[in-house]
Amino acid sequence: MFSDMKITKNKFVYIQLKDYIKGMILKGLLRGGEKLPSSREMAVMLNVSRNTVLYAYEFLQDEGFVYIKKGKGTFVSNVKVDLQGKWNINWKDEINGYGKLSEELDIIKHETKWQSGMISFKSIAPDEKLFNIEEFKKAFLNRMSIEGQKVLNYGYAQGYKSLIEYLLKYMENKGVDIEGKDILITNGFTEGFDLVLSCLTNRGDNILCENPTHNTAIKIMKLHGLNIKGVQVGKEGINLNDLKEKLEREKFKISYFIPSYHNPTGIVMSPEKRVELYNILKNYNVPIIEDGFNEELRYSGAHVSPIAAFSGKGNSVVYIGSFSKILFPGIRIGWILSDKILTGYLESAKRSRNIHTSSLDQAVFYDYLENGNFDKYIKKARRVYREKYEFALECARQYISSREILGEGGLHIFIKLKNINSRELLQRCCERMVIFTPGDVFYVDDGGKDTLRLGFSRVSKKNIKKGFKIIGEEIKKLGGA
Amino acid sequence: MFSDMKITKNKFVYIQLKDYIKGMILKGLLRGGEKLPSSREMAVMLNVSRNTVLYAYEFLQDEGFVYIKKGKGTFVSNVKVDLQGKWNINWKDEINGYGKLSEELDIIKHETKWQSGMISFKSIAPDEKLFNIEEFKKAFLNRMSIEGQKVLNYGYAQGYKSLIEYLLKYMENKGVDIEGKDILITNGFTEGFDLVLSCLTNRGDNILCENPTHNTAIKIMKLHGLNIKGVQVGKEGINLNDLKEKLEREKFKISYFIPSYHNPTGIVMSPEKRVELYNILKNYNVPIIEDGFNEELRYSGAHVSPIAAFSGKGNSVVYIGSFSKILFPGIRIGWILSDKILTGYLESAKRSRNIHTSSLDQAVFYDYLENGNFDKYIKKARRVYREKYEFALECARQYISSREILGEGGLHIFIKLKNINSRELLQRCCERMVIFTPGDVFYVDDGGKDTLRLGFSRVSKKNIKKGFKIIGEEIKKLGGA
Repeated sequence: MFSDMKITKNKFVYIQLKDYIKGMILKGLLRGGEKLPSSREMAVMLNVSRNTVLYAYEFLQDEGFVYIKKGKGTFVSNVKVDLQGKWNINWKDEINGYGKLSEELDIIKHETKWQSGMISFKSIAPDEKLFNIEEFKKAFLNRMSIEGQKVLNYGYAQGYKSLIEYLLKYMENKGVDIEGKDILITNGFTEGFDLVLSCLTNRGDNILCENPTHNTAIKIMKLHGLNIKGVQVGKEGINLNDLKEKLEREKFKISYFIPSYHNPTGIVMSPEKRVELYNILKNYNVPIIEDGFNEELRYSGAHVSPIAAFSGKGNSVVYIGSFSKILFPGIRIGWILSDKILTGYLESAKRSRNIHTSSLDQAVFYDYLENGNFDKYIKKARRVYREKYEFALECARQYISSREILGEGGLHIFIKLKNINSRELLQRCCERMVIFTPGDVFYVDDGGKDTLRLGFSRVSKKNIKKGFKIIGEEIKKLGGA
Repeated sequence: MFSDMKITKNKFVYIQLKDYIKGMILKGLLRGGEKLPSSREMAVMLNVSRNTVLYAYEFLQDEGFVYIKKGKGTFVSNVKVDLQGKWNINWKDEINGYGKLSEELDIIKHETKWQSGMISFKSIAPDEKLFNIEEFKKAFLNRMSIEGQKVLNYGYAQGYKSLIEYLLKYMENKGVDIEGKDILITNGFTEGFDLVLSCLTNRGDNILCENPTHNTAIKIMKLHGLNIKGVQVGKEGINLNDLKEKLEREKFKISYFIPSYHNPTGIVMSPEKRVELYNILKNYNVPIIEDGFNEELRYSGAHVSPIAAFSGKGNSVVYIGSFSKILFPGIRIGWILSDKILTGYLESAKRSRNIHTSSLDQAVFYDYLENGNFDKYIKKARRVYREKYEFALECARQYISSREILGEGGLHIFIKLKNINSRELLQRCCERMVIFTPGDVFYVDDGGKDTLRLGFSRVSKKNIKKGFKIIGEEIKKLGGA
């Protein structure tokens, strides 16, 4: 019976033997009380060392699968699982509204799937080839030697202290007055936004945002049952008259804006416009959630302070930041900078959701940042992405007939077509192995059917050109000029 | 003005200089158009190398704080923040019911704070001294060399594939039939439980659980607005007659149990009782959420399969597992094993909450597990904790006058006192620098006022003895026999 066992390479033999015997016991092929071959016999049978067998038996004993009778041998414990009559739940019927809506709004599940050989403009993830793994390793080993055991045990819900202090200073360096404010570390922007809405809004509340806006933010607002009112965004950015009209008409609980490299249009809001926006919302006393999305990537012109900076000692802006949209998204670290009282509530909500963000990741990331690696990285990333952006823009102008090409940098451009349905276009392009994100997913109403977002961060220049050409050709076939 | 700058050790000088100049610009002490000292002058003034100054200036330029006029020098950009009139929100008034309840139920915020010198029996976190940092480092470096850049970029919401496969096999090795089931990786048990309730329950639904039960679970159930009905747990474990009565009386949406090392009583449910429990719930068609809490720590007797194993191909048990209660809680990795259809919905909910659990942590943890390190760790941990458990039990019997001492192992014992209020006891012990968790926090009703949980995992034997003695003395003063 044991001779059936197949020993594979690349895996410890004692683990394989242990698992094999466990399996036989659980299936009832080895019964309670049955004697196992002696370690000597087993070693010969399997052509492995006797120590390997002894080690496997020892673990089986520890886990209660076998017991040893002194001088008599190793015996199987009585652990066979008595399967009970079948009991099935039709889980689909059990899912509540939240679960169903989560699935329905889960774009990744319902969009065109990537196939090998495709040129995909869907992603706006950073190009991992730019990550400096050696610096990251150094940061890890450094943290491990300083406090390895500590960071592998439970941490604080608010976050890893040194990282919080680093980020407070970082925000100060952007011109934000941090007095009376504090930081909560989150698992990226997504968790930050979800926590803020969880603690502040009730189903049916009105929320203001740009239209179009970040599709994940739309999903989260919808999951919270909010009434989303979108303010027009055109070539000149957000339409402040539209904003005023909306504020005049209805009461809003809160508002959400992406002033730097707005997703999906890539527009950067000017300092003057930030001030104006701030003052309009102040007039109506509607607090602002500011999404610092890709703020760090800006590669030209004078520094623009976040809206949070203009409020000085005021506390009406909740700033959600994340480096991980441009660096190490895999470790999921973001932060919320807000009034201390609000931070306290957000911290409790965070603790009830997942206790805290990985202390290991926070500690390593802190070490990485503290040693100036982010500055070095962002210098390189800005250069690479600017070059790509300029190239993509040039290709778009050359090949894609459009009404407008939006975007002042970042990792994507946004295109408005001339009366062409972008999903129809996508279908055709898909047949030619080119995919992109249809723009309607960024609209809070049924707008944007003639728009698309082209992310270029992980596409080579050669493929940007090739892909844009194909998109352009299909537009022509659809009757675009 | 620059001579005010204090250069500190342990931090790169160019970063300090950069931050200092940024600060002056943002405060308006350096105005737009103003010329900075030349790098030579600045180097002399601060007694640093000219390259350091050049490097700082370069970053300031990249970030848009200064600009260079060729042949003329470095000038300050126009980035001063014009502070707008004060606008304050009274955030406390803005917090909704969820936020308020989160804070109210956040035990950590309202309990006795630890002070230096105290003996604390509150924690049931593992003792980090048992963690093998060298093996963890090896796993990290191995993953980094194989796929460092990949794991630092975005991963999948469901989790890191190799870890999922490992855990499926791991569950199979516990006797669970995984056909038709799948795994979602979560940020620990807390997130797993929150996600399951988020997708399945509606406010006002009835949920069954043990009474007492895991306090974090109680918090999450309350935050979901569920009606919690607790089944009595005594010296013999869960009272199945009480369970039947409750099921007869009301309709339940779902149930939640901790069969292995029940928290807080430490009782292990026997295989026979698991089968009986399973069949009772099957009769009433109430699905089971099984919390695998500290299952891995069992250190005596034959292996006991999780309830999930008894259902065979049935899909009515949702199993939530986590190694991180005993190993590396800092990296927050847990999993939900459930029917594939349910897993799909849970995955979408997970994506809308925080995209995915840290890919880095998942990959490193997978490498650590795959190389048999967990087996080695748990062998050592079992020995250490068993010894501590036996010692603690002995001390409790010797010093603490009680009605019952519960617990068959694990990291804590649970004590029922003879008509003594454990919060009153805590107050007195606290004055003598000994603290513990009053048992009422584990009760879903107003029971447990005469109970306490004593966690010993991170307390030395010397302090266990000393602390238990003090508790015993205070019990006597309160009139305990």
